Amino acid sequence: MQFEVLQTDSKARAGVIRTAHSEIETPVFMPVGTVGSVKAVTQEMLEALDARIILGNTYHLLLRPGHELVRSLGGLHKFISWPRSLLTDSGGYQVFSLGDLRKLAEEGVTFRSHLDGSLIKLSPEISMEIQTALGSDIVMCFDECTPFPATRDEANISLELTGRWARRCRTKFDDLHQVENAPDQALFGIVQGGVYQDLRRKSLDQLREIGFEGYAIGGLSVGEPKEQMYDITEFIAPQLPDDRPRYLMGVGTPQDLVESVARGIDMFDCVMPTRNARNGQLFTTFGKLNIRNARWVRDERPVDEECKCAVCTRYSRAYLRHLHISGEILASILASYHNLYFYLDTMKRIRQAIRLSLFEEFRLEFNARLSRGQAEPGFD
Amino acid sequence: MQFEVLQTDSKARAGVIRTAHSEIETPVFMPVGTVGSVKAVTQEMLEALDARIILGNTYHLLLRPGHELVRSLGGLHKFISWPRSLLTDSGGYQVFSLGDLRKLAEEGVTFRSHLDGSLIKLSPEISMEIQTALGSDIVMCFDECTPFPATRDEANISLELTGRWARRCRTKFDDLHQVENAPDQALFGIVQGGVYQDLRRKSLDQLREIGFEGYAIGGLSVGEPKEQMYDITEFIAPQLPDDRPRYLMGVGTPQDLVESVARGIDMFDCVMPTRNARNGQLFTTFGKLNIRNARWVRDERPVDEECKCAVCTRYSRAYLRHLHISGEILASILASYHNLYFYLDTMKRIRQAIRLSLFEEFRLEFNARLSRGQAEPGFD
Repeated sequence: MQFEVLQTDSKARAGVIRTAHSEIETPVFMPVGTVGSVKAVTQEMLEALDARIILGNTYHLLLRPGHELVRSLGGLHKFISWPRSLLTDSGGYQVFSLGDLRKLAEEGVTFRSHLDGSLIKLSPEISMEIQTALGSDIVMCFDECTPFPATRDEANISLELTGRWARRCRTKFDDLHQVENAPDQALFGIVQGGVYQDLRRKSLDQLREIGFEGYAIGGLSVGEPKEQMYDITEFIAPQLPDDRPRYLMGVGTPQDLVESVARGIDMFDCVMPTRNARNGQLFTTFGKLNIRNARWVRDERPVDEECKCAVCTRYSRAYLRHLHISGEILASILASYHNLYFYLDTMKRIRQAIRLSLFEEFRLEFNARLSRGQAEPGFD
Repeated sequence: MQFEVLQTDSKARAGVIRTAHSEIETPVFMPVGTVGSVKAVTQEMLEALDARIILGNTYHLLLRPGHELVRSLGGLHKFISWPRSLLTDSGGYQVFSLGDLRKLAEEGVTFRSHLDGSLIKLSPEISMEIQTALGSDIVMCFDECTPFPATRDEANISLELTGRWARRCRTKFDDLHQVENAPDQALFGIVQGGVYQDLRRKSLDQLREIGFEGYAIGGLSVGEPKEQMYDITEFIAPQLPDDRPRYLMGVGTPQDLVESVARGIDMFDCVMPTRNARNGQLFTTFGKLNIRNARWVRDERPVDEECKCAVCTRYSRAYLRHLHISGEILASILASYHNLYFYLDTMKRIRQAIRLSLFEEFRLEFNARLSRGQAEPGFD
C-alpha cells in the first residue's frame, strides 16, 4: 500500500491510497459490508457509485461463513466478487459490544457466538490469522475499544492493553507476511485513550514506536458528547504521522465527516447511510428527511432536488414513501443507494474543495445549508 | 392496443402486442409488481431484463396507496416510474382468496382490508373505476374465480355470475373511455367454468358475445392436478379468438409456460420467480436449485453454468448461499434477478423457436434437460 498527500488546505488533506486492488482518493468514506455485502445494494451499484473501498467485519465473517472457507475460495475479494479494495476490522469492536457475553484476559477475548452460542476465542494473533485469510487490503490491529464513560484509570489500563496487543499484532502480521504468496496487505494501528488528551498522546506514542502503515482513532462515537469527539479528534489527528493515512473509525453523520476532515482525517466508515436508509431516513443537502412522514404522501419531488443520483433522477418522494410504508424491499434498495451516493458525493466535493484550497468555504456553505434545511418542516 | 400474430407453429403462436407504452413480443411472461414494485428488483433492472410489461394488483393498490392518490399523481406508470406497459388485474382473485372475510352478492363483493380491517366494496363498476384511475394498458374484468374443487353446479352458477359481471364491466369501461383524456386502455374478459369443458365453452361464448380486446383463462392453477390444467388449456385455448391475445392467468412453472404455449397461450403472469427467489429457490435449465442447501457451500460455479445473466456471470453458488443463510437483502435481489432472467429468457427462446418453426424441437429438448437435471443431486 502506498499513500501520498497531494494537497493540504489548513488541516484538511487530499491524497491518494494505492492498494493492489484500487486507487482510493482521500478523504474517503468506506461503505460497510458487514458479512460480505453492503446491505441492500449490489456490487454493480457500488461500482456505479464509484466506491473504491468497502469494509468487511471480521467478527461477522468469522462466525459466518468462516475465514477458512473464504480462504479456500480465494479470499474475500473473490468470494464476494469485489475487485476493488477491502478493509477488515479486527473483530474487537463487535466483541466488546457483547458485554457480559465475553471474557477478557491478557491473552485475548473469549465469547459466545450470537448465532449458535458456541465458544469462540479472539486474540491479536488470531485476528491477524483471520484477516490474512480474508486477504483484505487493509488489516486493523486487534484493540480494546475503551467504552464511554471510562475513568482515567480505566482508560489508561485499556490503552496499555491495546498497546501490548498492537505489538503482538505487528509481530504476527509480519510473520504471516514473510511466507511466499501472502496477500499484499497493510496493517493499521488504533489509538485509544478515551476522552483524555494525554492518554491519547501516550497511546499514539506507543503505536508510533511499533510503526504502522496507517493510524486509526478508535473509541470515539461510542456515546460521548459530539463536542468531545470533535475535541479529541482536533487534538490527536494532527499528531498522527503526516505521511500515513488517518482513519476515524465508525464516524459518522455527513456533518461529522466535514468537521473531521477539517481536523485532518483521511478515512471514515459508518453503517449510518445504509442502516438509516432501511429505517426510512434519507440524507440530503438540507438535512435528514424521514420518508415515512405523511407530509410526503403526494410529493412528486425527488428526495433531494439537488441530487443527481439514479434514485433522485427517477423516483418521487411519494413513491419512496409508499414503498417504505408497504415494507417493499425496493424501499431499502433505493434509500441505501441514495444515502451512499450522498455520502460518497459529499466526500468528492470535499476533495475538490481541498484541491482548490476552498475547503473552509465549502464547510461554511455546507453547514449553512444544513441550518436552513433544519428550519424547514420535514427535515432535521 | 393492437395485436398481431406473426407466425404459428402447430398451436404455438408468436406475435406482438402494441400498447401506448411499449411493443410486447408474445408469448410473454409478465413479472408481478403487486403493490407497484416487482419485489426486490429496481425498475432499472426490469429494463435491463428487457421486461416490456409488468403487472399491478388492483386489490393491493386500492388498499395502499389508493387509486385516487395514484390518479392524482398522473397514473401508475408515472407513480412508479415505469414507462413500459402495465396490466392490472381486477382485484377479484385476491378478494376471493379472503374466504370468510368477504361477502358475495350479485352487486359485488364486500370485504375487510387485511391491513386495517376497514370495510371495502368491489364490484364490476368499481373495479373499472379503479383500473381506469390507475391507467394500466390492459384492464381485466372483475370475475369470480371459481375455486377447486367445485361441483358442476357451483362452477355453473359461478361462471354465470362472471358472465353478467363481464357485461357490466364492458358497459362501465366503455362509458369511462368515452370522456376526453381517458387513458388508452384495453379490456380483457376472463373465461371461467372450472374443470368442466362444456362450462368453459359456455363461459367463452358469453364473453365472445360481449366482445373483448383479449381473452384470459381464469380459475386454473388454483389447486387442480397439473394434467387437468393442461387438459382444460388444451381444450379451450384454441377456441379463444385467433386475432386476440390469449392470457393464462397465474401460471406457472417454466415447464407450464412451455406446455401452455404449445396449447396456444400468448401471455402469462406468476409470482413464482420472485417469491421462490426470496425463499432461495432458483430456476435453471436443469431444474430448481435450493441455494440454501449445504451442498453448495464451497461451490464456485454460477447458479446455472449456461445462464448469461448478470448474476451468473459474476457471483458463485457459495456466495449466494452465504447471503441467503445470512438473511442479506442482496440474496433476494440477486435471486429475483436471476429467476426473472430465466423466465424472460425462456420466453425469448420460445419466441425464436416458433419463428423458426422449431418449437416442438425446443420443447422436447427443454423437457429432456429438465429430466436430466432432476436426476442429479441438488436439483428438483
